[in-house]
This record gives sequence, C-alpha cells and structure tokens, in this order.
Amino acid sequence: MTEIELIRRIARRAKGRAASEGLIRGIGDDCAIVRPRAGEDVLLTTDFVIEGTHFLKSAEAASVGQRALGRGLSDIAAMGGTPRWCLVSLAMPKSTPAKWVDGFYTGLLDMARAHRVALAGGDVARSAKITCDIVVAGTAPKGKALRRDTARAGDRIYVSGELGRPWDLPPEPRLKLGRYLVGRTTAAMDLSDGLSLDLHRLCLESGLAASIFFPLPVWPGVTLDRALHGGEDYELLFTAKASTPLPTQYGGVPLTWIGTMARGRPGAVTFMGRNLAPRGWDHFA
Amino acid sequence: MTEIELIRRIARRAKGRAASEGLIRGIGDDCAIVRPRAGEDVLLTTDFVIEGTHFLKSAEAASVGQRALGRGLSDIAAMGGTPRWCLVSLAMPKSTPAKWVDGFYTGLLDMARAHRVALAGGDVARSAKITCDIVVAGTAPKGKALRRDTARAGDRIYVSGELGRPWDLPPEPRLKLGRYLVGRTTAAMDLSDGLSLDLHRLCLESGLAASIFFPLPVWPGVTLDRALHGGEDYELLFTAKASTPLPTQYGGVPLTWIGTMARGRPGAVTFMGRNLAPRGWDHFA
Repeated sequence: MTEIELIRRIARRAKGRAASEGLIRGIGDDCAIVRPRAGEDVLLTTDFVIEGTHFLKSAEAASVGQRALGRGLSDIAAMGGTPRWCLVSLAMPKSTPAKWVDGFYTGLLDMARAHRVALAGGDVARSAKITCDIVVAGTAPKGKALRRDTARAGDRIYVSGELGRPWDLPPEPRLKLGRYLVGRTTAAMDLSDGLSLDLHRLCLESGLAASIFFPLPVWPGVTLDRALHGGEDYELLFTAKASTPLPTQYGGVPLTWIGTMARGRPGAVTFMGRNLAPRGWDHFA
Repeated sequence: MTEIELIRRIARRAKGRAASEGLIRGIGDDCAIVRPRAGEDVLLTTDFVIEGTHFLKSAEAASVGQRALGRGLSDIAAMGGTPRWCLVSLAMPKSTPAKWVDGFYTGLLDMARAHRVALAGGDVARSAKITCDIVVAGTAPKGKALRRDTARAGDRIYVSGELGRPWDLPPEPRLKLGRYLVGRTTAAMDLSDGLSLDLHRLCLESGLAASIFFPLPVWPGVTLDRALHGGEDYELLFTAKASTPLPTQYGGVPLTWIGTMARGRPGAVTFMGRNLAPRGWDHFA
C-alpha cells in the first residue's frame, strides 16, 4: 500500500462516521480547516502513545487506538470543553500488518463517533516502533475553560470515580462531568499519571500545598499504593470552594471530597498528615 | 531531570520568546487555550520528524528543531494562513544528552520567534529513537484558506522559488507569499515530497490531470531528476486562472509558470508530453 492509498483508505473510513460540524476541510490537504463558533475558545492537546513505552507489541490494535484518542479526550474533559476534531499521526515499521492498522483505526474511529469527534487530518511515516501522536481540538465558552493554576487556599479537593482503574479497561473520558463542573470548580485536571504526582502538579501550578485524607475512593481489590501512585485513571481531580454545593455523584460517577488546598510550599502534598512523595508515572525519573 | 523539571525548563525558554497574542493558557495545563479572532478559521497541521526516517542521529539538534517547525509552518503557508501557536511532542531515549534537547528547542524556538508563533504545549515521553511530532495551529480569514481540491481545468500551474533545494539549508516557509496568493489562486499546496508526487496529489484532490513543461526553475547544479522527484523544497505549488495577472517574483521569490491543469484521468501528470510517474518521497512505497 502506498502512502496515498493508506491516506485515502483512512479518509474513506473517517467519512460519515463522525460529526463534521465546523469541519470545513478534513483529510487530504496541507492543513485541516475548522471553524469554532463565535464566542468559543479553542482547546488544543497532543499525546503520544508509543509501543514499548505506553503499550506492548502484544496489545490489541483497537485498544491502542481507543487509548490514543481517550488520552486526548480526557484532556479536553479536564478543561470542561467539548472535543470536536482530532488529527492522528501514526508511524510504524514496514512489517506492521494491514490488519493492525485497520484495527487501530477501528478502535479510534468508533470512539470518535461515540463522542462526535471528526478525524480531520494527521501524518503517516515509517519508524522502528509503532508511534502514535494524537491531537484533539475542542471548544469551550470564551474564558470559561477549567485550568490547573486557579485553585485557592481553603478549596476542597475532589476526585471523580474510583482510583486504581484496571489498565485493560477502555478509557471513559469524563466529558459530561467536565462540562458540568464549569462554573462550579476553581481548578481541574485529569488523573493520568497517578494522584500523588498529578495533585503535586496542580499544587505547583496554583502555587499552593494540599492535604488529603483517608478513605480514598478506590477500585475493589486495589492497593492503597496503586490508588495513590498508579496512572491512567482518566478521572477528574478538581477543587471547589467549601461553600459550593456539589452532589455526591453526577451521571452515576461518584464525586468524593478527598482533601483541602492550603498555603504552604508549592507542590507539597500530605496524606493523613504525612508527606506524600509524587511517585506517579514520570517518563524521565 | 524529571518530567516536571524538563517541562518547566521548556516553559521558561518558551516564555517571552514568542508573541502570545491569543494564547490564553500555554504550557502547564491539560490543554492549551487559544483564541482566534472573530471571523477567522483555524488551520491545524501535524508532522512527524523521526530519527532514522527524517534525519540521521548525527544531525545537528538545532536543525532538527528548525525542520520540525518548518514543516508545519510550510503547511500553514500553503493554506495562505498565519501561524499562531505550536505544540511540540518529543519522545527520546534515556541516553539523549541534555545538550541535544537544548539545541533542539533553541532551533525550534528561534524559528518560532522569527515567525511570531507561541509554543503553547506538547508532550514528552521515552522512545527508542528520537521522535518529534509538531502541531502548528494558524488562522485564515473565514472561508479564504487555500486548498488543494479547488483547481479548475485550464488553470495555469506555478511554483515558487527553485526546485531541488539542498537538504542542509534550513526551511524558509513561504508565509508571506501564501497570504499574498489568497484571492489570486484557485488552489495551492506546499512542495514537501517532490513535484511529481505533490502535483499528482493536487490533481487527485481536484479531480483533474496536468501537463508541465520545460524549463523548470531549478537550483544551480541540480539534476532534472532531483528537481522533479526530490523532496523538502518547502516551495508553494499553486494554480491560477490564465486571466489572473501574477508577477514573475514576489518578495524576491521567483514565481514560475510551469504548466496547465486539464480534464483527464485524475492524477495523471505529463512532462514535455510524456507520462510523469509520481516518484517523489513515499514512506510506504
């Protein structure tokens, strides 16, 4: 298959599958042309999914595609936005079976359709290991997107769902919850590298410390260590004023108060009164 | 260096270097938040630059960074747009020297500053080979972006500059020329994989054939084969009505009439009356 044939094949599969509102020009040009509505900000995120780093060669192709898009969708959810368009860059060895490529796009496009996201472009190339980089572009009402750097001392800290999600489950990005939280939270991010590291990051960005307490909401059978430091939860971590009423669940997803933001050394997190080291997933540690 | 330290280092270097107009939130969050002006479409492009595929391990780090951004800027130029923001995903082996990473970002950020493009985000990860995927987002007046699928039979075909650019020269994306061509051309794309393959693509997208003729504008000392099939020219290939007056140069860059679009088998290109096979760079051929 030549590059042109591969791209035409992807373009055919992308068509009619996903909402194309605001997609003026998709696959086949130098750039995708997209059109946000008046009064909308644009959210941009990009995430790698690399063989040997993020998944094993033995992983099912469709699950790799799902996971690639899921990472980006979760980033949009964390901003309280709506995902609209995606671009997929896929590099792979010559030996990659056509069936693998088909499975990858099936997983990715099924998830895209479920979330009304249009595949708008990308790149293809050769590489020694299968390497995907996904771009998701979304929208949020002007000035309303949730951020990590806006938590205030005294805010309550919450997480959605349960920590320690099994890695073989497909991601379920918390998009509806993210949009619900707009106007109700002071800061938000998604849990991708483990609570201890991600809360440390939120604290650093907001210039604050945090304390969290027991019990944390965890998947059945999961160790506390995994709940604190495991990655790929795809849940939302967010802060809200103590005076903001929040339900204990939204759309069937539990919302649990787990701690409080405080003045102190930026990034310092305690758990049950003891220092909690940011031991989550760090590519460079 | 941990991932947080690396990202902070990149964020520090990105700050104050590039125009930040319309950049509401940059590095440090789940997504970048950008704000196009009213009446603007958004252009999105993503391109890989991979060790062993696009560059050799011995390549100078700054030139790899320049080339990564240059590829994306050239895509924006081809649409007649203005590049505004970029996201850089960089995966690399543990053994990559900090000096290489610094050099890469120096090359990339110097070029970004020269074009008033803000580094707004990205991703970092481990990989076996250095792998960069760059996203450039730009803007164009609503409905005015240049496309590949809008050439008409009878249109003249032009190229900017000279074909067969030496690969060791840094890319000079034709941004000013691209914007000048808005309203003057019927279709446009950039020359990244060689004239024969790229013109074939433009013809396929527009559902037309094309004929090109001698002499082509070529770099001194370059073979005709290289001029026809060599890649990475970073010049613009565009079509215009015969009745549209175009200068023979714009901003010091020659504009040369090289052929004519015609009805016929979509994608068929002739050179001096003979069939010209699309022999340019194809990752999957």
